[in-house]
Amino acid sequence: MGNPIKQLAILGSTGSIGQQTLDVVRASPHKFRIIGLAAGKNINLLAKQINEFKPSFVYYQDKKAHLANAECELLSLEEIARHPQVDTVVVATSGKSGLSPTLAAVRAGKKVALANKESLVMAGEIITSEAKLNAAQILPIDSEHSAIWQCLNSETQEVAQLILTASGGPFHHYSSAQLKGVTAKQALKHPSWQMGRKVTIDSATLLNKGLEVIEAHWLFNMPYENIKVIIHPQSIVHSMVEFIDGSIKAQLSYPDMRLPIQYALSYPERLSNPQLPRLDWSRINNLTFEQPDFDTFPCLKLAVEAGKKGGTCPAVLCAADEVAVDLFLSQRIKFIDIAKLIAQTLEQHQVTTHPTLKEIMAADAWAREKVLQLATGDNPC
Amino acid sequence: MGNPIKQLAILGSTGSIGQQTLDVVRASPHKFRIIGLAAGKNINLLAKQINEFKPSFVYYQDKKAHLANAECELLSLEEIARHPQVDTVVVATSGKSGLSPTLAAVRAGKKVALANKESLVMAGEIITSEAKLNAAQILPIDSEHSAIWQCLNSETQEVAQLILTASGGPFHHYSSAQLKGVTAKQALKHPSWQMGRKVTIDSATLLNKGLEVIEAHWLFNMPYENIKVIIHPQSIVHSMVEFIDGSIKAQLSYPDMRLPIQYALSYPERLSNPQLPRLDWSRINNLTFEQPDFDTFPCLKLAVEAGKKGGTCPAVLCAADEVAVDLFLSQRIKFIDIAKLIAQTLEQHQVTTHPTLKEIMAADAWAREKVLQLATGDNPC
Repeated sequence: MGNPIKQLAILGSTGSIGQQTLDVVRASPHKFRIIGLAAGKNINLLAKQINEFKPSFVYYQDKKAHLANAECELLSLEEIARHPQVDTVVVATSGKSGLSPTLAAVRAGKKVALANKESLVMAGEIITSEAKLNAAQILPIDSEHSAIWQCLNSETQEVAQLILTASGGPFHHYSSAQLKGVTAKQALKHPSWQMGRKVTIDSATLLNKGLEVIEAHWLFNMPYENIKVIIHPQSIVHSMVEFIDGSIKAQLSYPDMRLPIQYALSYPERLSNPQLPRLDWSRINNLTFEQPDFDTFPCLKLAVEAGKKGGTCPAVLCAADEVAVDLFLSQRIKFIDIAKLIAQTLEQHQVTTHPTLKEIMAADAWAREKVLQLATGDNPC
Repeated sequence: MGNPIKQLAILGSTGSIGQQTLDVVRASPHKFRIIGLAAGKNINLLAKQINEFKPSFVYYQDKKAHLANAECELLSLEEIARHPQVDTVVVATSGKSGLSPTLAAVRAGKKVALANKESLVMAGEIITSEAKLNAAQILPIDSEHSAIWQCLNSETQEVAQLILTASGGPFHHYSSAQLKGVTAKQALKHPSWQMGRKVTIDSATLLNKGLEVIEAHWLFNMPYENIKVIIHPQSIVHSMVEFIDGSIKAQLSYPDMRLPIQYALSYPERLSNPQLPRLDWSRINNLTFEQPDFDTFPCLKLAVEAGKKGGTCPAVLCAADEVAVDLFLSQRIKFIDIAKLIAQTLEQHQVTTHPTLKEIMAADAWAREKVLQLATGDNPC
């Protein structure tokens, strides 16, 4: 009580996270008001959302589309992200398109509920330093980072290590030989989470977990040496924090993104929400943990190494992965080629340390072209 | 840094918790100073402890013993507990002897690191209201309550339920028929914790977990309906808190009492301590959870019911159990008779609501006599 209604902008409102964010808003309409909505090409769904939530500002990518709604003002992603009426910006766009509006929101001192991995992975140094300068708060929406954030609570000083859990994806326990023949259809079948196509493939290669390690590094100001990954196929323990006295705190729930989304929006409050499932301990008999298989799933190691090298390397990692996953989904390369292409691209990259945004974007463009060259054998190097 | 040295009194310094408390002090000598030590009859060990830690004040129960140490002043337990030089009192005595010094410490506004279960179980209402009145802090040392305390941290407002874990004890999965023949030697063999004899038997009957439910009720001001017990044989997850949004936080570590002891002493800091084991995730493959078997282990239900009834019932429960466990350890009754004697004693008790300390002590004395009568068949009722 007494807390004012939070004024939200949701960038990527028609995607998986965006739609679940609107579910959270529906469950607590007295807590949140939708000020801005932004989508890509799913104009039909966006039109429905506008009709339901009556935002003041909208954005959509599809230039040919026309949304007949006199009440809404058309703004750019960045204009919505920094608009004075908005206090919390949910960045749920996928890929590098999240970077520019995230930076706009951070520079405007907003609360930024961040589901877009690429922003922090590509430009973690710039975003976190700008957040500090402008007293912006970056609130993680990824289930792993939300878990760590919940476990840390006010105890941020005495952390020994962060332990990120990974489901292991659909190919957990596959051998390298078995991985050679897997199809996009198989890779898109995640055992515990319902997610978008790109992130589902990234979960299958474990690259996703590597991106999360890089994100955790920036979000919690934690050296890579103190971030560990363990496989936990049930996806009940979402991540853990080990403190300097050896005590570990873990956060548990069924895998449902609405919980970390709601926590980011309601923080520092928690909200009762009957739609969120409560763990049924009569059905949870067994939580298992294993070490990741770095040899069979080389993407995890590639990502952590790119993070450690820093500079433009993580941007190259992201770009190379995005193109490689596209190539895999359109059946132009095999599953195991994703890691190979990323590795080759990173090898050939001339890293720029402490890059500007322009240099990051240049590295991104270079990597995209390089992967295509490598994939088609049309390699001028 | 900048935190002053904490001035400790340890009541029960020669017992299991007392000795481990001194281990914690040894590991961080710049953080703690021992002002007072109190023991029962183990004069030899007490003399060694006095020699090592040079306390200003001591107490020992054995009136015939003589400790030649001119540096120490002999005081009563209560005088040590409320002494102005002491800021944290560790109450690690067993049984009802902890009650009076706990009350003295609470009334003197001390930090009270509480390992003694009986104080809160017998007189939770009096102790918690006196603590509030005198701005005393009760810091739990039990691993379960420490886990809950760590998980709550600053989030005390939005709790849905507390989930206490129980190892299940040495007779986990025994049938009622199998329990009939178990010996004291078997019952004293706890699968995961090294503890004193009384608490080990209480773990085998699950009465201990019932006492912990009552303690949790008072420590965290939580209705009994919102305190749940689940069996977790590995004793790695020490307890959990479920919040109103369905998110659960758990605290994990190897079973080692030095961790919750140190946390209670160092709070709100955490201290690095190389002697405390860190969880090795390459060896933890499997955490299992089961529902408790209330029928085979009736003590758990008896205890929770006594807690719910309140008044003098929990004191009767404690006293009846103490005598019954003694009778079992001296082979005068069977293991399954412990629950029967407690149940019969509680049935025959005329409960006094909101009892004074005197009424609690009278109920205690009544129950002790009643159990002996019932056990020997010499029952005047």
